Amino acid sequence: MAEAPAALSDFPYRIDIPTRWGDNDMLGHLNNVVYNRCIEDIVTKFTRLELGVDWLGDACYPVSVETVCRFHQQLSWPETVAAGLRIERLGESSVAYGIGLFGADRTAPAATGRFVHVYIDRQSQRPVRVPDGVRARLKDFQSADAAE
Amino acid sequence: MAEAPAALSDFPYRIDIPTRWGDNDMLGHLNNVVYNRCIEDIVTKFTRLELGVDWLGDACYPVSVETVCRFHQQLSWPETVAAGLRIERLGESSVAYGIGLFGADRTAPAATGRFVHVYIDRQSQRPVRVPDGVRARLKDFQSADAAE
Amino acid sequence: MAEAPAALSDFPYRIDIPTRWGDNDMLGHLNNVVYNRCIEDIVTKFTRLELGVDWLGDACYPVSVETVCRFHQQLSWPETVAAGLRIERLGESSVAYGIGLFGADRTAPAATGRFVHVYIDRQSQRPVRVPDGVRARLKDFQSADAAE
Amino acid sequence: MAEAPAALSDFPYRIDIPTRWGDNDMLGHLNNVVYNRCIEDIVTKFTRLELGVDWLGDACYPVSVETVCRFHQQLSWPETVAAGLRIERLGESSVAYGIGLFGADRTAPAATGRFVHVYIDRQSQRPVRVPDGVRARLKDFQSADAAE
Repeated sequence: MAEAPAALSDFPYRIDIPTRWGDNDMLGHLNNVVYNRCIEDIVTKFTRLELGVDWLGDACYPVSVETVCRFHQQLSWPETVAAGLRIERLGESSVAYGIGLFGADRTAPAATGRFVHVYIDRQSQRPVRVPDGVRARLKDFQSADAAE
Repeated sequence: MAEAPAALSDFPYRIDIPTRWGDNDMLGHLNNVVYNRCIEDIVTKFTRLELGVDWLGDACYPVSVETVCRFHQQLSWPETVAAGLRIERLGESSVAYGIGLFGADRTAPAATGRFVHVYIDRQSQRPVRVPDGVRARLKDFQSADAAE
Repeated sequence: MAEAPAALSDFPYRIDIPTRWGDNDMLGHLNNVVYNRCIEDIVTKFTRLELGVDWLGDACYPVSVETVCRFHQQLSWPETVAAGLRIERLGESSVAYGIGLFGADRTAPAATGRFVHVYIDRQSQRPVRVPDGVRARLKDFQSADAAE
Repeated sequence: MAEAPAALSDFPYRIDIPTRWGDNDMLGHLNNVVYNRCIEDIVTKFTRLELGVDWLGDACYPVSVETVCRFHQQLSWPETVAAGLRIERLGESSVAYGIGLFGADRTAPAATGRFVHVYIDRQSQRPVRVPDGVRARLKDFQSADAAE
């Protein structure tokens, strides 16, 4: 992740994630697992709202096969986390996302992450090629990212 | 809940719930919502393992319509919570459970709760009579409770 | 809670709570404990941002002693929950809040709740009178509520 | 993680983690973030109970700087997860743990993970050398692991 974007504005897809009281742990900062929750939040919203995937209805849908999170700065309730997502790699059956989580400083991520989806067939539960419609929308985001 | 059992041993169904780091909040004690999580834990395990309910397969299944929790003592990670359940009331379509959550002191609950299930039909999503098989097992627990 | 407000606009304090993927449970709807999480969310944000309470620094601070939640309609990720709060009762050391959680239909709550805070002294951990500054702000909200 | 242990019995430290209803997501399996929760659970219990670290009292304590999780098999409530931990690398200020999460099949992990702690000074919040007492206990575990 050496070449990962440094600023929130470098990510082509962005959402706000308000924190909840219970997100802080006894050290008074966002619990490390909550960073994973934020990473999942932006990936699943992107997948549902931008790619149009319906996990309960589509013939194939994505499952996570790998997640990585690196912690750089502490975040703390009640601040709102700004999350950014870009497509790191679009493979045959997989999509790797690069994620940045930001606090008040939008120019340096509080955490960076990686989240890999593999599309599987609902019946066989085996990997399948990323569906054409989903693939087309992913390429649009890659183009938008490259153009910036 | 004035007549609620005082000691863990008064509850006919009991499970241990190990706490997890993130269950504590920034005050250094179990977050209040985690008490609700514990109440749900014992109710759903009782329903699955003792009543034999299959939420994803049965023609009718229970949903929660009301939860209450009263906090008496603080609990804290890494202690294991001992949870106890009894049947407060078995109605036509509903079951009300009384719950006690205990820390090291098994004679005084750290929290007491109430959780009400209503059985609904999967298709209509309307309340139905508690199924005979489930009802029979619930009555067994009521008898065991009364006999103690 | 028979006289509880029916519409979101009846509550004098309101926040939006975006849902997260993991908030849904295996029945495909918001898990019942997540409703408790939403109730805590609005109560703690109101207490921090409107009442100015600093849980880690103030000489006295509130802890929860009772929570109630009644479920009327299902909510589901990825919708945003709209939460409303009003002051039900301001006592010597306690504040009882009435909460409504709303989905797309802002005129009928998906859930209604009650959350009771008791202010305690940091050293003794015993109940104390709600501090004057906090009490004054609570009365402002009561007046605003009554005036509507 | 190519040389990671394959079976639960290969890990020198092991705990059971009962699942909770809300750990499953709408796909009917353990939510991927819950795997991170399980990884944190075993790391923090090992650190508290075996290394004797007191996060709220010690002059220095560990914070997480990196977590990785790879998903191999699905797990599902109400099963109990068996978690295993070994020390992958003990550095100057850091400890890297290798984690395996197992379902009923104790010979093949459902997930494998990595969790890196860095010890920091409470005042400066800067990395410090892993304290001697903690280091000695970590070496005991490394020896036990190598001897098997």
